[in-house]
Amino acid sequence: MRNILIVGAGRSASSLIKYLLDKAETEQLHLTVADLSVELAQKKINNHQAATAVAFDIHDAASRSKLVSESDLVISMLPAHLHIELAKDCLKHSKHLVTASYISDGMQALNQEAIEKGLVFMNEIGLDPGIDHMSAMKIIDEIRAKGGKMLLFESFCGGLVAPESDNNLWNYKFTWAPRNVVLAGQGGAAKFLQEGTYKYIPYHKLFRRTEFLEIDGFGRFEGYANRDSLKYREVYGLQDALTLYRGTIRRVGFSRAWNVFVQLGMTDDSYIIDNSEQLNYREFVNLFLPHHPSDSVEIKLRLNAGIEQDDVIWDKLQELDLFNPNKIVGIKNATPAMILEKILSDSWKLSEDDTDMIVMYHKIGYELEGKKQQIDATMVCLGDDQTYTAMAKTVGLPVAISALMILNKVITTPGVQLPIAKEVYEPVLQELEQHGVIFNEKVVDYKGYEN
Amino acid sequence: MRNILIVGAGRSASSLIKYLLDKAETEQLHLTVADLSVELAQKKINNHQAATAVAFDIHDAASRSKLVSESDLVISMLPAHLHIELAKDCLKHSKHLVTASYISDGMQALNQEAIEKGLVFMNEIGLDPGIDHMSAMKIIDEIRAKGGKMLLFESFCGGLVAPESDNNLWNYKFTWAPRNVVLAGQGGAAKFLQEGTYKYIPYHKLFRRTEFLEIDGFGRFEGYANRDSLKYREVYGLQDALTLYRGTIRRVGFSRAWNVFVQLGMTDDSYIIDNSEQLNYREFVNLFLPHHPSDSVEIKLRLNAGIEQDDVIWDKLQELDLFNPNKIVGIKNATPAMILEKILSDSWKLSEDDTDMIVMYHKIGYELEGKKQQIDATMVCLGDDQTYTAMAKTVGLPVAISALMILNKVITTPGVQLPIAKEVYEPVLQELEQHGVIFNEKVVDYKGYEN
Repeated sequence: MRNILIVGAGRSASSLIKYLLDKAETEQLHLTVADLSVELAQKKINNHQAATAVAFDIHDAASRSKLVSESDLVISMLPAHLHIELAKDCLKHSKHLVTASYISDGMQALNQEAIEKGLVFMNEIGLDPGIDHMSAMKIIDEIRAKGGKMLLFESFCGGLVAPESDNNLWNYKFTWAPRNVVLAGQGGAAKFLQEGTYKYIPYHKLFRRTEFLEIDGFGRFEGYANRDSLKYREVYGLQDALTLYRGTIRRVGFSRAWNVFVQLGMTDDSYIIDNSEQLNYREFVNLFLPHHPSDSVEIKLRLNAGIEQDDVIWDKLQELDLFNPNKIVGIKNATPAMILEKILSDSWKLSEDDTDMIVMYHKIGYELEGKKQQIDATMVCLGDDQTYTAMAKTVGLPVAISALMILNKVITTPGVQLPIAKEVYEPVLQELEQHGVIFNEKVVDYKGYEN
Repeated sequence: MRNILIVGAGRSASSLIKYLLDKAETEQLHLTVADLSVELAQKKINNHQAATAVAFDIHDAASRSKLVSESDLVISMLPAHLHIELAKDCLKHSKHLVTASYISDGMQALNQEAIEKGLVFMNEIGLDPGIDHMSAMKIIDEIRAKGGKMLLFESFCGGLVAPESDNNLWNYKFTWAPRNVVLAGQGGAAKFLQEGTYKYIPYHKLFRRTEFLEIDGFGRFEGYANRDSLKYREVYGLQDALTLYRGTIRRVGFSRAWNVFVQLGMTDDSYIIDNSEQLNYREFVNLFLPHHPSDSVEIKLRLNAGIEQDDVIWDKLQELDLFNPNKIVGIKNATPAMILEKILSDSWKLSEDDTDMIVMYHKIGYELEGKKQQIDATMVCLGDDQTYTAMAKTVGLPVAISALMILNKVITTPGVQLPIAKEVYEPVLQELEQHGVIFNEKVVDYKGYEN
């Protein structure tokens, strides 16, 4: 019997726990699911005999050490900054560790000791980061194995509402943390490489420099640039590629409408609005528009943003009930971003029977035997329901799969790592295919960067 | 003989020192001008027998204390954050203090002790802050004395090139710290009050919500909003005013062209450009534009910014030699803002015989005996040359004048203060008029906020 300690039983743990419980008997597994809320942990294990739910505070060093010592492998689904103490306990008790988070400097510092103790500390093995690394490296390694030279790497990912539940004008609902959606792209210019030249896009232009993406059977999407597209340049071995671009996927038209909020200043999270609690939605909008003795808030917004009355953007804004004087913000000391999130949540909340969708798109351009070519790889994963969402599946399954493979010594290389080695991505991607996470690759003409 | 210690002999000290030296004999003054560079201090006093130049490091506590103890009054022209130790020495030795800087929390904390010792710690008595406070409070107090009720307060100030030296398409040259000009408006939304409603303008919209200002004999100017227009609401007693707006003055058309840099992201100071030192101007511009296989940088910029070829903005950009591939940035680890400052400095540097200009404009609306009216007060000050600039005069003269009035017990109220009391502003404004700092007031129709 192998004991897996899972810390954190939140939304992304559902598919992870289900995968491991389904294998509990054949693989001789016992799960200990630890969460601040024992009820949440209990709900996730659903009285399964191979699992125990425990109440657990990550800051309680004694219980943490004890739980780790009693396990064979630890999975941390906590927020990234909470992994480190758990990781140190894993070193102390010689246990493997799996997380879906970016490798922090603190985590990286444990590499040498993890190697010395023969422990696998696998990180960035969720969706993004995770499936993106694995699916990209598989293609890159295949091209390199044939002697190809990398020219272009573009990679996009997005969490959206599934087509069957896609019933608003924005083609968008909150399928993950709404705050992150409102703040997306803030905190500095987006940086990437286009045909050998560095490019920088300031936040207020980000949503006007999008790129179209077509996926067979799902239609057209758009992508806007992530903050730092150069992050994995060395990790992927793409030092010579002319174009490096990472982006976020939305349905076409989302960005153009979202840009209205950006331009008005409604996504700003850096200052507090006076008297925010008492404001109504209409007054909130009016804060960002000049005074006019007679024009309505609607007319001022249309003039200010240059929106014609038959433009679909206008319908999108009205759908949000943005101009309603009877809806009150009701949040003390709120920033514009906090108020906008509240307004959007009224409209973009998933209904009981809504399902979500994860979309990933890689464009990988290369030169092989004097010929320039491009592989476009796409993956669409649909959620089953509001528990086994596409997000929970794509984040949780690679974590669960890799955890079991570490226990089964399929994945053995020790140290603090991310899943870019063939030893890791090949079996994990194969197993993911069994669970509906399937990449379609096609060879297309290489056109360089199109934008 | 009264000894005045002047710490800091930089650009804004020229007119200040000249004013006091011109009065040295009649007023029995001796000046000690202390600066890190004794040469600079010597140059400013120009062998005048009533003055001594000394080399001085503000961080040298012993010399600082000694210099303060030997003086009757201290004037600090240092950067604002360096005043505090000097102020503490003034308390220790019971000396008056005058600065042109905003009152810091540290300075404010000395208020009680200054009052107890009967010391005047006069701050914010330069141009802006300084002359703006005094000229506005004079009008506000006059309106209140007649029983008027304040409706609107708008106040604008700008440092520009004088008309006779105004020979570029931007109608602008750097007459003060170029870095502050490039970064103007950054760090948060501009906040003000319009007809009873708070308004917020994000940085990327700031230069598109300007207001026109006409000054007899000088033509038309424009103003864009400062960061916090509500700062002096309580200090001026304007709690009931419906409109509060403070802005920066430029010549008409500056802001519309400047907005091109803002939109491209060239004024960003928050990140470092890769390989900035080797970039040429043309490559710098291209960082902010999408790749195109054949379009030139010029065409991409025009398309991206929506500039038609016969738009004067285009001429303004070309005048800056922005597209020159032979001019090299030459600054290591430079931010976009640092590179833009370098490019602008090539074109906007004052020539030897150029002179500068300070423009101030107040609009003060009020209701008196049931009638709404407005007073527009304007002041234009022209520089004499590159030493006695309009900036040096308007910053330095009120400092010098108030210092002498403190010594002569015309200004006597003790404590940490700014010049909003009639006891202060009345004699200082009168004396300023003798030196060409003259406000023209006219009563105009009250139209509320026009924008």
